[in-house]
Amino acid sequence: MSERQQSLAATWFARLQDDLCAAFESLEDEGQGGPAGRFERKAWTREGDGGGGVMALMRGRVFEKIGVNVSVVHGHFSGEFRQAIPGAVEADGAFWAAGLSLVAHPRSPLVPAAHINTRMIATSKTWFGGGADLTPTFPIEADTERFHAALKAACDAHPVADHGRFKAWCDRYFFLPHRNEPRGVGGIFFDDLASGDWDADFAFLREVGTAFGQVYPELVRRHLHETWSAEQRHAQLVKRGRYVEFNLLYDRGTSFGLKTGGNVEAILMSLPPEVIWP
Amino acid sequence: MSERQQSLAATWFARLQDDLCAAFESLEDEGQGGPAGRFERKAWTREGDGGGGVMALMRGRVFEKIGVNVSVVHGHFSGEFRQAIPGAVEADGAFWAAGLSLVAHPRSPLVPAAHINTRMIATSKTWFGGGADLTPTFPIEADTERFHAALKAACDAHPVADHGRFKAWCDRYFFLPHRNEPRGVGGIFFDDLASGDWDADFAFLREVGTAFGQVYPELVRRHLHETWSAEQRHAQLVKRGRYVEFNLLYDRGTSFGLKTGGNVEAILMSLPPEVIWP
Repeated sequence: MSERQQSLAATWFARLQDDLCAAFESLEDEGQGGPAGRFERKAWTREGDGGGGVMALMRGRVFEKIGVNVSVVHGHFSGEFRQAIPGAVEADGAFWAAGLSLVAHPRSPLVPAAHINTRMIATSKTWFGGGADLTPTFPIEADTERFHAALKAACDAHPVADHGRFKAWCDRYFFLPHRNEPRGVGGIFFDDLASGDWDADFAFLREVGTAFGQVYPELVRRHLHETWSAEQRHAQLVKRGRYVEFNLLYDRGTSFGLKTGGNVEAILMSLPPEVIWP
Repeated sequence: MSERQQSLAATWFARLQDDLCAAFESLEDEGQGGPAGRFERKAWTREGDGGGGVMALMRGRVFEKIGVNVSVVHGHFSGEFRQAIPGAVEADGAFWAAGLSLVAHPRSPLVPAAHINTRMIATSKTWFGGGADLTPTFPIEADTERFHAALKAACDAHPVADHGRFKAWCDRYFFLPHRNEPRGVGGIFFDDLASGDWDADFAFLREVGTAFGQVYPELVRRHLHETWSAEQRHAQLVKRGRYVEFNLLYDRGTSFGLKTGGNVEAILMSLPPEVIWP
């Protein structure tokens, strides 16, 4: 990994955070009921090793809770992670990682929840990973198709990406085995992306962010002014319970973050604001 | 393990379930606002291997959600469990297990939540495990002392038990490292209890159940008719989030149950009815 690559990646994630926050604040302006939400940003530094991040959190009238976190951290893996992370042993455990993570929990049960994460990790090797997926309480085929089509277009524009493989990976990853049910309607998921052409890989990573930033607000707008019932809200709060179960039981990013002394508030930002287990 | 031991243990857990359910229905009768709750019982059988259980669940006016589950299951451990569970390799993976698990989530933020689990497990070895602990939103010293004193008395009556060790074990176990905070105010926790005198160990296990069935209702009664504020309710819903985090991230019983094809509804019965991550 070169300094140029570090700098390009860190700059990109910061810019993507700005762009996404602006897009979601626009949606707040278009919403109804109560004041339009605005992101609050909070910088944090990593305890122990180096680096930190900026967590942007908004509680609004369209988004009950939406968090967009960017982190740029470095340090040394020890124990189980040094063995498990590619290239970590060869680098004496040293790593550098930067990424953006967003989780949107809309107020309306008719607006799908969504998640995107894109990241660059460097040990003695350098690679990208990430994914974007949609979690509606009431799946609508046209929305699902539109979401998949946007991610397919993003993949198809880059020879280093394989939409079919990344879509299947997403379905496998965002699955709750104990309930034998998927978390949502899928999207894409990829890891260990290192084609040998860093610039090509990075261009794809950027496009995933850009595509998500266009298609998800489009889907939110489709349902922004629909009214919902108490029964639909109830179903949404139950569905959110499944989201919590997945993130705490299975999500690798969550356990990785918590076990490596990450920022707890930023990591658990993904948890929904209100949940029921009926 | 003998058939007599199996039969005694299974009979005891069923009786303890009846006694605890009766005690909690009495508390419902003493409550106010809305109709007094009653337990609904649901028998379930284990998919794959043998056995099953009875889950008793009540949603009432004192207890927003309280579940009391008894299970008697048997089968074969494979993979990681065969290696990790004492005596499982020697028994070619065969196991028998019976236990009772209770989690109480009161409606009032002034009434502490509570949990008890007692179990007997047999592979080529036979042992007991369990624990009881208290999770108030607003800890009150007198309540905490009374709870610990009751469990200490239960331990002190049995030479096979060591209250100091079991109390410290509880504090270590019910701890959220990512938040550097305890789940509640503790109680007791023990495992691998096999003194060589099965009847003595079993007598202690029974006394843990009996002691809990006396002291917890006593603590509930202390606060049953106190009124609470919206701020106190908010704090309770946040505290419940910590309970969810512990159970899904760290609780061995939860991951053991989910990974061995246990009854999902019975295992996740422990999750609070309503939770917020503010």
